[in-house]
Amino acid sequence: MALINHHYLKLTAGYLFPEIARRVADFESLHADADLIRLGIGDVTEPLPPAIVQAMHTAVDEMANRDTFRGYGPEQGYDFLREAVATHDYATRGVEVALDEIFISDGSKCDSGNILDVFGQENVVAVLDPVYPAYVDTNVMIGRTGEADAQGRYDGLIYMPATAENDFVPELPTTDVDLIYLCYPNNPTGTVATRDTLQRWVDFAHEQQAVILFDAAYESYITDDSIPHSIYEIEGAREVAIEFRSFSKKAGFTGVRCALTVVPKDLQGTTPDGEHKPIHPLWNRRHTTKFNGVSYIVQRGAAAIYGDEGSQQVRQRIDFYMTNARLLREGLQQAGMTVYGGEHAPYIWLKTPRGVTSWDFFDLLLEKSHVVGTPGSGFGAGGEGYFRLSAFNSRENVELALERVSQTLSD
Amino acid sequence: MALINHHYLKLTAGYLFPEIARRVADFESLHADADLIRLGIGDVTEPLPPAIVQAMHTAVDEMANRDTFRGYGPEQGYDFLREAVATHDYATRGVEVALDEIFISDGSKCDSGNILDVFGQENVVAVLDPVYPAYVDTNVMIGRTGEADAQGRYDGLIYMPATAENDFVPELPTTDVDLIYLCYPNNPTGTVATRDTLQRWVDFAHEQQAVILFDAAYESYITDDSIPHSIYEIEGAREVAIEFRSFSKKAGFTGVRCALTVVPKDLQGTTPDGEHKPIHPLWNRRHTTKFNGVSYIVQRGAAAIYGDEGSQQVRQRIDFYMTNARLLREGLQQAGMTVYGGEHAPYIWLKTPRGVTSWDFFDLLLEKSHVVGTPGSGFGAGGEGYFRLSAFNSRENVELALERVSQTLSD
Repeated sequence: MALINHHYLKLTAGYLFPEIARRVADFESLHADADLIRLGIGDVTEPLPPAIVQAMHTAVDEMANRDTFRGYGPEQGYDFLREAVATHDYATRGVEVALDEIFISDGSKCDSGNILDVFGQENVVAVLDPVYPAYVDTNVMIGRTGEADAQGRYDGLIYMPATAENDFVPELPTTDVDLIYLCYPNNPTGTVATRDTLQRWVDFAHEQQAVILFDAAYESYITDDSIPHSIYEIEGAREVAIEFRSFSKKAGFTGVRCALTVVPKDLQGTTPDGEHKPIHPLWNRRHTTKFNGVSYIVQRGAAAIYGDEGSQQVRQRIDFYMTNARLLREGLQQAGMTVYGGEHAPYIWLKTPRGVTSWDFFDLLLEKSHVVGTPGSGFGAGGEGYFRLSAFNSRENVELALERVSQTLSD
Repeated sequence: MALINHHYLKLTAGYLFPEIARRVADFESLHADADLIRLGIGDVTEPLPPAIVQAMHTAVDEMANRDTFRGYGPEQGYDFLREAVATHDYATRGVEVALDEIFISDGSKCDSGNILDVFGQENVVAVLDPVYPAYVDTNVMIGRTGEADAQGRYDGLIYMPATAENDFVPELPTTDVDLIYLCYPNNPTGTVATRDTLQRWVDFAHEQQAVILFDAAYESYITDDSIPHSIYEIEGAREVAIEFRSFSKKAGFTGVRCALTVVPKDLQGTTPDGEHKPIHPLWNRRHTTKFNGVSYIVQRGAAAIYGDEGSQQVRQRIDFYMTNARLLREGLQQAGMTVYGGEHAPYIWLKTPRGVTSWDFFDLLLEKSHVVGTPGSGFGAGGEGYFRLSAFNSRENVELALERVSQTLSD
């Protein structure tokens, strides 16, 4: 009699974004003519830069020719891409990462879920609150939590509130933790961590012999050079941290699919007997046994963002989105809202008007402004009373959305 | 103190193909001028058909234009591809599969490992022996086995020998099982299952309330129309089977990456309390929470194989490989070898000369013939004394390999 993984039944409601899609579809079925502006899911809207397009055309042509055709590639990714990452993403920030510490994958959501495979069931997990829901849900699915309470907090997880009250800098846990998820620039709040804040986390992880799962998916949106792009810019991080990076937001790859994970060889965990073992060979085994590498064509596209033309074109798109972010931030402030983020991240995190829940505000903007955002409470109890708007859209739509939301708020 | 998943430490040696790669690299470092012919890993060698190349170029161009750019797609795959699969892969064989029962993914190796996420830890797993190693290794990694014995058989798994002695038709397990892996046309033996054989498995799964994990990665190589391409051609299969399919061998996608899994809505498992629950929503949840869909460009390429031109071009390539298979089969028989497979699958499964182990035969062919094959024992204890050659190579190389191997055998 085949048993299901009953831990899945603990998951509350749908995963956030499918739930938003459902409400939007319901709305559209009733208002077919409504001109919706989507600032919800955080999906890029600008086309791929020409240098990337060119590189992918060339790669497709290589696949059409017997002499240059590529079958199975290295599961961990081609060296041409790993080298570009080591040189341009890390060495430029003074960080040394070996090629075989870089694992190319098809997405950071996949990686941040899959990484749990190499850790034991008994680990205590700490997450920021609000939090990117996939971190929590994948831990629920793997059986590392109990049931959720009325606010959606799962028994067994350590939640670290990051709200306006503590200036979005959560306090260190006061109980023992083993795995710590950090995401900076933060999704959903758009806030960043200073070098001092990160050093405090790294030191704490050393004390605890814990592992930090550091999601740097938005590092390319940082505009202040003093803010670390990588956890490995922090002393001692190689012994305690895994880093996730993505081409999705950096280069518009949400539909192209490419990401990477860095697992330093200095990082260790322990067996149930207390023996120390490196994590790197475990992840390598996971990656080679349960994954077959990223499409060659996609990897060529990803590598092209590091060329002279590619990097300039990618920079232009990021600047474009960040101008959107500034317009949203300033416009909403003028409309009387309290606004966070949007300075080093493509997300605006705003406080809903007093007493209005996140989902009520979602429905209000959907129905009155025809604007789709993301309810803060979808990111956890700590996000209740907040709302996320993304800067990923055309200038025209951002300006129109701002106008409509301002109008709704003044009504 | 972060605990590792100590089950990984039970894994014996490396995963098969990396181990082969290591031995080949060692050989090449000593014999830089050796003209190796690779018939080992089962990787396609023919370039992508023009219809697929054209479709991917068009898709790349769509990504270069704001109006046609695609960001995040549906995690489960675009409808244009799911519809093509339902129509051309299933309806043509009299099988009705709903669109939302088809989940597009980046590989069957990934899917066959990831599917374990939705099943409980306590399930008893049965595999053929020899077996595609990923089925076994992923179960070891998830903690569903004990240690391996001297022959590499893991405690807790049910092994079902499929050898020349039973005509490669294993007997049904005599103890209770919950998950049953079947792969037809079979990797590595190249043998097929008749309708009667599959009906016996489906009936057995009904009796046991077990789930069959059916890997149909090689179905397009079947040359006899009476042999089922899909487990769903068998009565009652929708209630007991999940099917995996891949574009890798069908359309030369090993480096492009696309596959799919069918989870029928009629399929159920039980909770620890004995309550019946459908598997479909669990896999859908897994797929949306831990995966972000396949590259749009790749999905357009995959869909092109179902067009008039694409399907003809794909057929030509399969015929080409199957001619290779016939040449290998007949040539090795003439050289005095006992040979199986190669009629409905791109794999030749040969008995090694009396008393020669699989790895010794591997080393012999590598050193004397400069031909890389796959040792049967790498697929499990039941494969000891066998050896796999793949038909994926140029005609010239296949003929040359045959010549060299025949020479080695006659020396």
